[in-house]
Amino acid sequence: MKEIPYKIYLEENEMPKQWYNVRADMKNKPSPLLNPATLKPMGFEDLRPVFCDELIKQELDDTTPFFDIPEEILDFYKMYRPSPLVRAYFLEKALDTPAKIYYKFEGNNTSGSHKLNSAIAQAYYAKKQGLKGVTTETGAGQWGTALSMACSYFGLDCEVYMVKVSYEQKPFRREVMRTYGASVTPSPSESTAVGRKILKEFPGTTGSLGCAISEAVEAATSKVGYRYVLGSVLSQVLLHQTIIGLETKAALDKYQIKPDIIIGCAGGGSNLGGLISPFMGEKIRGEADYRIIAVEPASCPSLTRGKYVYDFCDTGMVCPLAKMYTLGNGFIPSANHAGGLRYHGMSSILSQLYADKLMEAVSVEQTQVFDAAVQFARVEGTLPAPESSHAIRVAIDEALKCKETGEEKTIVFGLTGTGYFDMLAYEKYNNGEMRDYVPTEEDLAKGFATIPTLQ
Amino acid sequence: MKEIPYKIYLEENEMPKQWYNVRADMKNKPSPLLNPATLKPMGFEDLRPVFCDELIKQELDDTTPFFDIPEEILDFYKMYRPSPLVRAYFLEKALDTPAKIYYKFEGNNTSGSHKLNSAIAQAYYAKKQGLKGVTTETGAGQWGTALSMACSYFGLDCEVYMVKVSYEQKPFRREVMRTYGASVTPSPSESTAVGRKILKEFPGTTGSLGCAISEAVEAATSKVGYRYVLGSVLSQVLLHQTIIGLETKAALDKYQIKPDIIIGCAGGGSNLGGLISPFMGEKIRGEADYRIIAVEPASCPSLTRGKYVYDFCDTGMVCPLAKMYTLGNGFIPSANHAGGLRYHGMSSILSQLYADKLMEAVSVEQTQVFDAAVQFARVEGTLPAPESSHAIRVAIDEALKCKETGEEKTIVFGLTGTGYFDMLAYEKYNNGEMRDYVPTEEDLAKGFATIPTLQ
Repeated sequence: MKEIPYKIYLEENEMPKQWYNVRADMKNKPSPLLNPATLKPMGFEDLRPVFCDELIKQELDDTTPFFDIPEEILDFYKMYRPSPLVRAYFLEKALDTPAKIYYKFEGNNTSGSHKLNSAIAQAYYAKKQGLKGVTTETGAGQWGTALSMACSYFGLDCEVYMVKVSYEQKPFRREVMRTYGASVTPSPSESTAVGRKILKEFPGTTGSLGCAISEAVEAATSKVGYRYVLGSVLSQVLLHQTIIGLETKAALDKYQIKPDIIIGCAGGGSNLGGLISPFMGEKIRGEADYRIIAVEPASCPSLTRGKYVYDFCDTGMVCPLAKMYTLGNGFIPSANHAGGLRYHGMSSILSQLYADKLMEAVSVEQTQVFDAAVQFARVEGTLPAPESSHAIRVAIDEALKCKETGEEKTIVFGLTGTGYFDMLAYEKYNNGEMRDYVPTEEDLAKGFATIPTLQ
Repeated sequence: MKEIPYKIYLEENEMPKQWYNVRADMKNKPSPLLNPATLKPMGFEDLRPVFCDELIKQELDDTTPFFDIPEEILDFYKMYRPSPLVRAYFLEKALDTPAKIYYKFEGNNTSGSHKLNSAIAQAYYAKKQGLKGVTTETGAGQWGTALSMACSYFGLDCEVYMVKVSYEQKPFRREVMRTYGASVTPSPSESTAVGRKILKEFPGTTGSLGCAISEAVEAATSKVGYRYVLGSVLSQVLLHQTIIGLETKAALDKYQIKPDIIIGCAGGGSNLGGLISPFMGEKIRGEADYRIIAVEPASCPSLTRGKYVYDFCDTGMVCPLAKMYTLGNGFIPSANHAGGLRYHGMSSILSQLYADKLMEAVSVEQTQVFDAAVQFARVEGTLPAPESSHAIRVAIDEALKCKETGEEKTIVFGLTGTGYFDMLAYEKYNNGEMRDYVPTEEDLAKGFATIPTLQ
């Protein structure tokens, strides 16, 4: 049983040196972003005021299959990568399943998640372009932390607009960012026109991700030498995150392991897209077949209950439109939901793959997610992030199905991060105070009503 | 420059299978524990009501050089070990030093520190003895978390008495322990006689480690099937922690690296003792020479300003006496001090080695420690625990000396853990509100006055 080690680490010289662009292999390409003013596809020049040049090229390129990872980024990756591919021997034993379970663990870095993989790339291209700094928004704080670390490494200024309620409830996340030299502003703030407008209209508001995005974009575009960066949804982010899937595949190949099922949690889609890309490429090219499962919260079910249409990427309806599975830019997931994965839409790459039936999607309720999280923590040691625990839930469910059927399937899932800054949610669960929430048809209708009628 | 990888991981089959007992090689053995009632050396039967049988054997054995690590513990170690030995290329570059810096990083597990290495061993021996559970105290919470994880793995009951002020100020640590199934009681509590007595005498007290120890010992000895376990100071704990030093040595040997200086932070001594033991063994046997440096906080300077005498291990003066460098069991380090390392005494093994001039000790002030912590975090990524940062401070200082002299020394230090649950201290530092504290001669005199006069 122990022929496969508990943790498979690639050697430095086995680490991927290129990112893989799954769009190059897709028969039906993801639809382009639309300019919110003209409703025409956005080109390089449209995006230049907001994004870094090199990142726009990556965003728009759906034909180049591989992008070389610059040496400076490879060096930084060596600081915390390769991440281990862990054989979940202890979980298998606890479940008494014939299934073989592996997880790719992205939490062993101070940002606590996979977000650092793209943060360092985005900071690198900003630095290379000679910029002074970047702006972004953060909700739970993982992306903001990752970007702070990356900017600190390259000596870039980093301005983070943090949703006010998180700023106040998660002072520790805020302090990690400050320790890495970032300035953290609670949003809405007095420092932008959009922030002042919102504060005037809604005095005492605790903010929203949509508002923080608007402030970060304004901050980037109203100063010389700044650009806006984003931690998920965009195709460039999925590209950088393919380091997860490429390492996973290399580690599996090293031991001649062929997965049957690949599972990842999905909010905006950056982790899932990164994990599955190389496997999806094989599947599209007909070289292998895999069941690929996206797991989303029942409280924000964009793939399983959303519509595949053009919608604004932000609630403020100032950002570009993307064709994606969406609940409507005005959809508000229950505040009761503990984890992340609260975005109304889904990466346009993943949306197209799902529309083409190349992957499945399931939604799970949060108490079941935390049941799985605690079971996992107690046998595998690591306390998982609530987001990651969505994937654990479905991996356990699939392993239990194998127990019933006796099938020795190989299951791989993405463990995107740790839950050390999510203990309020665990406290609720430990005290038996956690409740599930599933939107009613009426809730969904309200969200759908905010989708523009350009279809 | 890149011939040595950023992170050296041992293969599973290269991992140590025995712990090393440095006492077997020591010419002057550490002095035995004394029974507080009789002042005679404590034997096996004296210790049985409090500690597990197998652990007492390890505690008393100063002649057996190696102890086999049981298979079950080796399995658990594989869950989070080997820990990486990291070449601090980024730090070296930032310091522009010819020195080569390595650190052994013990923070990549949910307990956040090296404490898990001994917690799993102690839980294993308790389980093997057929006990129902164990009790312990915790201050900052790292030890309590580690023990909760270990007990959860073996299905043992785990009762943690957490100093009340920490229980209230660190609710997240408390919830991690509860997530792993431990019961966490704020100390002093109504559930023990000693707790009730203290609450009656000092209503509204926020507790102390000394009081929590007394409660945990009473809880263990007043019930059938329970024993008390401790996370530092004891020789058995140092024995388990030698996994750190043995892995470090194996990783260095693999690349034919010979360290010149080995540095670790020292509170009770478990991490430092574990890291240096195999190197100290070589030094004692005359096979190699190393500079070995213990780093302690200026606010609690047991080695650098303490006395080498018999003193009680606890403030309540009910526990055994140990011969050690001590500031007096009544010494109270400034509440202003942010990190751990607040114990009044020092492991009797390390005390004897220091008395025999086989190692050095330095004390450092906390603002300098946090300067080093932030510098390290920004270039090496990982946000270090305040305790570990004491070692970083001295490693940087030694590397800067090399820069002056041009010497290419090899420096190895122990990075015991991460600072994710210490953000209040970082916040103080980030806000410029952190102050240093060095005890006056008068403060020290007050502590020394509590040392019993049996010398």
